[in-house]
Amino acid sequence: MRSTDDRIRITYQLTLREGETPDAKAREVALEQTVELPDGCYPPQIEERIVGRVESLEQSAAREWKAIISYHPELVGAEVPQLLNLLFGMISMKLGILITGVDLPRSVLRTFPGPQFGIEGVRSASGVVGRPLLCSSAKPVGLSPAELAEICGALARGGIDIVKDDHGVTDQTCARFRERVERCSEAVANVNVQTGSRTLYFPNITAPVSQVQDRVEIARAAGCRGVLISPFLMGLDAVRWLAESADLILFSHPTLAGTFFHSRHGVAPEVLLGTILRILGSDGVLYVNAGGRFPVTEAECMAIHANLRRPIDGVRTAFPVPGGGVDVERVPHWIERYGVDTVFLIGSSLYAQSDLERASRDLLASVERHCSTEA
Amino acid sequence: MRSTDDRIRITYQLTLREGETPDAKAREVALEQTVELPDGCYPPQIEERIVGRVESLEQSAAREWKAIISYHPELVGAEVPQLLNLLFGMISMKLGILITGVDLPRSVLRTFPGPQFGIEGVRSASGVVGRPLLCSSAKPVGLSPAELAEICGALARGGIDIVKDDHGVTDQTCARFRERVERCSEAVANVNVQTGSRTLYFPNITAPVSQVQDRVEIARAAGCRGVLISPFLMGLDAVRWLAESADLILFSHPTLAGTFFHSRHGVAPEVLLGTILRILGSDGVLYVNAGGRFPVTEAECMAIHANLRRPIDGVRTAFPVPGGGVDVERVPHWIERYGVDTVFLIGSSLYAQSDLERASRDLLASVERHCSTEA
Repeated sequence: MRSTDDRIRITYQLTLREGETPDAKAREVALEQTVELPDGCYPPQIEERIVGRVESLEQSAAREWKAIISYHPELVGAEVPQLLNLLFGMISMKLGILITGVDLPRSVLRTFPGPQFGIEGVRSASGVVGRPLLCSSAKPVGLSPAELAEICGALARGGIDIVKDDHGVTDQTCARFRERVERCSEAVANVNVQTGSRTLYFPNITAPVSQVQDRVEIARAAGCRGVLISPFLMGLDAVRWLAESADLILFSHPTLAGTFFHSRHGVAPEVLLGTILRILGSDGVLYVNAGGRFPVTEAECMAIHANLRRPIDGVRTAFPVPGGGVDVERVPHWIERYGVDTVFLIGSSLYAQSDLERASRDLLASVERHCSTEA
Repeated sequence: MRSTDDRIRITYQLTLREGETPDAKAREVALEQTVELPDGCYPPQIEERIVGRVESLEQSAAREWKAIISYHPELVGAEVPQLLNLLFGMISMKLGILITGVDLPRSVLRTFPGPQFGIEGVRSASGVVGRPLLCSSAKPVGLSPAELAEICGALARGGIDIVKDDHGVTDQTCARFRERVERCSEAVANVNVQTGSRTLYFPNITAPVSQVQDRVEIARAAGCRGVLISPFLMGLDAVRWLAESADLILFSHPTLAGTFFHSRHGVAPEVLLGTILRILGSDGVLYVNAGGRFPVTEAECMAIHANLRRPIDGVRTAFPVPGGGVDVERVPHWIERYGVDTVFLIGSSLYAQSDLERASRDLLASVERHCSTEA
């Protein structure tokens, strides 16, 4: 994760097409992502300081090469848009270039806030120790604030630790942001008072640039400790901005991120969701789990976890939040695979049962039973 | 482009995998992009109002079907992040779903500003009639403000109509934003005074959310009439926001957009760059041209032009700006193909010549010669 000298190191899997050579393709990336000019059409001092440096190049399969290219951190400065640009800007429009690793030097890492709460801070806010956290969404879009609040209450009474808005629920006329957040927050707070539980409610503050600050303030005034955002809809700098300014737990939703995930071209999920979203400041990162309704492998999930939870100097760890078709019956299996430092996001398989509160309570009981047997 | 009833219509090319049926796949899209719940796990009134409606479904090739699904505009509201979410949010993580068309009803179109200047406004600012405009970039990143200003001056003296920053040049320590913009703008203004020309200088204001407004103000104070932004680095709502608030010509750069462009999964370039960037407020849209250093076909370019320049009620047309390896020698050919309402962005093939001013002057002369022969 951390580069030892003061350079950014990016690892690429290059797939060669007819007529391409590995050296030329690696050099093409190094030029396209920096000077955007052909070899030599720039002053000589630029070559040394600015053009990417091909550090290593080795064959990994037929037509497939692993390249490591290093870059001067000045290219990024402290700007998230330029980090994205350096990672995959113009080469996104080429073919056969997959980013499989990013190592940032301390000089770059320290310009981004990282998680403000991290796994420890989220556990502390929820009061849950020794087991994974359970999360569910109030849905679908189209319900009224009263209807959504009723769902939030049922999930809280059932013992769900984090009740969040669905990521498609924002400020629609059927449920305007302020009224919805106030009602849902109140419904959860009432359950907490009645039962002594500590369920958190995270509203979705994904919004046009000019309205994000208002929604943060409404969420805080309603007593929310955290929020949901969709960085790929808002721009990834929103994570950095909110981590620096909002004093709220940030859970990042992956909607639209699939544009990056192709087998031979793009940015690998563990880099984009595991490394990048964490260093920018996500306390939890949602992703679509294997075995659900999306074509994802368990190995990809494990790689995301590794990058969210591995030690990085001065950067807190972040919760992996698998969702997208996690079945209640299979949660004990996933605890075995993923460990207790996981937030399980369960939606459809709770909603498929007629009584949401009871379904939630059964789920929590099975998780507690599993974790106490384990311990 | 405009939907006749008040619904959003999205056209998909669905590629079926083993075991998939067209009806089930279309219904899956309609559910995933709205309620995110399996059939029936939501109140019945939601089915009618919220779930996407499969309007038509027809086979277009072996294993390939064309589906049109319509959606209630309430899902988007007036929010760009939700427009993106509805277009390609969660389905981005599935396979074999390509968006080939988007029709927005007037109720949605009127919530977005559209181009504030458009083709007419940009022509009027530059004073160019009867021929395409010529654009070039001051580059590469790594040069000092004085060096970049010298390049801007040379391009302006050579008669380039729009001199812009390279999209990788932002606020690096080697050329901080304010000093660079002031110097480059002054260099171009001086040439305009000396020669009576009207070259425009567009600085790149792509920046972290919290700094965009400052950069707009610096650019305006320096006398700039327009700016360059990279919507895919900043979040697409930046286009809407700046079109509504900045009173500057907006040229949108495609860096990172290639994540959407895959042959059987994604959002087609003519939809993303042609339709979406235009309706949000771009006055010019840069894209990588066929025959350059990116794998793009001429048909894709023509489709982008068609969507930028076709009549849409109440939405100005926007300039197509082909770049990414347009050779000076081939410009007359591209004028034939693309017509005069085009801005040609020429970089490498000017820089490959030793005298940038002379290379620019030769280019302008060949364009003027070509267009006067035509007329």
